[in-house]
Amino acid sequence: MLVSKKVFELPEVTTLSGKTIRNVRVGWESYGELDAEKSNAILVCHFFSGTSHAAGKYAESDPLPGYWDAIIGPGKAIDTDKYFVFSSDTLINLNANDPNVVTTGPASVDPATGAPYGLTFPLLTIGDFVRVQKALVDSLGIKTLRAVVGPSMGGLQTYEWAATYPDRVERIAPVIAAAEPGAWLVAWLNAWATPIRLDPNWRGGDYYGKAPPTAGLAEALKLVTLHANHQRFIDATYGRRAAKPDADPLAALAHQYAVEAALEDVGRARAALCDANHLLYLVKANQAFLPGAGAGAASAEEGLKRVKAPALVIYSPTDLVFPAERVEATIAVLRRNGAPLETATLTGPYGHLNGVLAIAEQADRIAGFLDAEF
Amino acid sequence: MLVSKKVFELPEVTTLSGKTIRNVRVGWESYGELDAEKSNAILVCHFFSGTSHAAGKYAESDPLPGYWDAIIGPGKAIDTDKYFVFSSDTLINLNANDPNVVTTGPASVDPATGAPYGLTFPLLTIGDFVRVQKALVDSLGIKTLRAVVGPSMGGLQTYEWAATYPDRVERIAPVIAAAEPGAWLVAWLNAWATPIRLDPNWRGGDYYGKAPPTAGLAEALKLVTLHANHQRFIDATYGRRAAKPDADPLAALAHQYAVEAALEDVGRARAALCDANHLLYLVKANQAFLPGAGAGAASAEEGLKRVKAPALVIYSPTDLVFPAERVEATIAVLRRNGAPLETATLTGPYGHLNGVLAIAEQADRIAGFLDAEF
Repeated sequence: MLVSKKVFELPEVTTLSGKTIRNVRVGWESYGELDAEKSNAILVCHFFSGTSHAAGKYAESDPLPGYWDAIIGPGKAIDTDKYFVFSSDTLINLNANDPNVVTTGPASVDPATGAPYGLTFPLLTIGDFVRVQKALVDSLGIKTLRAVVGPSMGGLQTYEWAATYPDRVERIAPVIAAAEPGAWLVAWLNAWATPIRLDPNWRGGDYYGKAPPTAGLAEALKLVTLHANHQRFIDATYGRRAAKPDADPLAALAHQYAVEAALEDVGRARAALCDANHLLYLVKANQAFLPGAGAGAASAEEGLKRVKAPALVIYSPTDLVFPAERVEATIAVLRRNGAPLETATLTGPYGHLNGVLAIAEQADRIAGFLDAEF
Repeated sequence: MLVSKKVFELPEVTTLSGKTIRNVRVGWESYGELDAEKSNAILVCHFFSGTSHAAGKYAESDPLPGYWDAIIGPGKAIDTDKYFVFSSDTLINLNANDPNVVTTGPASVDPATGAPYGLTFPLLTIGDFVRVQKALVDSLGIKTLRAVVGPSMGGLQTYEWAATYPDRVERIAPVIAAAEPGAWLVAWLNAWATPIRLDPNWRGGDYYGKAPPTAGLAEALKLVTLHANHQRFIDATYGRRAAKPDADPLAALAHQYAVEAALEDVGRARAALCDANHLLYLVKANQAFLPGAGAGAASAEEGLKRVKAPALVIYSPTDLVFPAERVEATIAVLRRNGAPLETATLTGPYGHLNGVLAIAEQADRIAGFLDAEF
């Protein structure tokens, strides 16, 4: 399945906090065809470090397809023979320097000054991401989405959609996401951001046109990667092997274990495509997440009460980012709404990342949920 | 129970890697009296960020007693009316700038140069810590320890004692510790160290006599504190309250949640007493831990096979540092040795830190294990 990036543009967006952003641009892509009634659209929302590249490849030679390719495509769980599946890059997308990503955030040029916004860009919430997606949906003439689905921060967006636009969403499938982050996640998001703030190249966010805080950003991405995974996979994959057979880790402070070198490589590779300020902004957006924020909800519980859509909540019992206990608290609140509610768990070895890397385990449940008539 | 610090000195120590350290000094303290046969001694080994201050207070006005005061004292689980309980600061102790800690490490003065060692200090393992403890035990005329006990890195020391000196240890109680760290823990230890390496004041370890990398060290200690705890405690304690009621965290990048401010305060307070290079050295020592290293064991399994001592293994099912699965793997290996083996779990809300903060839950089991005749 070959896909190409499209660009959705808005001359102006008003944020939930009342700020105006001009010349907003986000990338998006789609798989399958919109039917005549425009009733077969499924929106896929991406995770913290993800992009709108949910499935397919841009070119046959791409080493990997989009992150949920295992469940999106012809004949797959999210069947592009039946459904028009689409996904957009969020505002303040982390991968601002990826040529396949189009986003608007601190790294974008402020039309008022002709220079990058930096920290003058307004702080956003996930409700702001959904507001832009809603404009994209409107522009396509879609009245009702058959489903909004997505993992992790993508799952937060499904809750926001269902709480803020309850008449526009027929069902949601939030994956590896609780509707209310607790202090624990707030603190971990802070920890993810810490290496950037410590990098002297960060310069309080004012690094555009100068050497960017690549070392700090790489360390941040290393930490995100580790925290999103689990000992079952990491221990089995790396053990305590040295990175280089002739460099005993105990012989010099700089000698590494294989797992240290591997995570460093991941962090460095990802940092080349990402923007450090965007990561800090994403941390804020996730820390402050409130379902129904776009509709003025004052608490997660109040927001969740607005949800009418049937839900399939999929989670990972070994998740260290959205621990199972918190997802189960969300499930308990949703259950009181009385709408059909299904739950499923993922048993892969990847912890939080089961929602991406092991999602095919629940392909049949997802297919059945999307096809059901409620 | 008032206690005072004593100092144990060795003119010279040869490390397991064959290096020589001169003028070695470590602090130690004791509770209770050694009996005439010197048969009632229990050695308590401290955790990564701990010290020899296991129980009691230095002065009535101390805000808090030693970390295991709940189970060490007259009539307590480790009963100082019966036992001579003692504990020593490890080499490369993290709290090198705490006036109540005496240790030898990178922050110490190298007698060969008259200046701090810095990174010229040899890398150590936990076997080296135990080698110094063994010299202290010998100096006290103690032939056999009734028990070696300790949480986390202290638990690693109990395994090293039982594997390297099997005839000198009657029983061990490793708490919240697996005998073989996996890649997961290796990577987390790396993550703990990262903020120090990113702090420009670290200067490749050469900061003595200059401004030390306090910001990086504080962030490292923040991360250790978070990782060692658990969402049950953190979520319940802090929720998503703002640190200051008039400073909405979403109104400015610098505005904090209460949990962020609280962890920052903890990190900053602890950093004032700690040394950054010591933390990096402790990371290495823990990553490389091998029970029986002092006896030349080539693998954790080989080391554990040398253990003859009955063991009481206490762990926390919500532990994110030494996950239960890894402790249970250690238990399975020990069980094959055939010595009496008991296990117990801690149910407090603190994750790894249950081994310190909730240890009183297992007071009766500990008391019974120490009193038993095998």
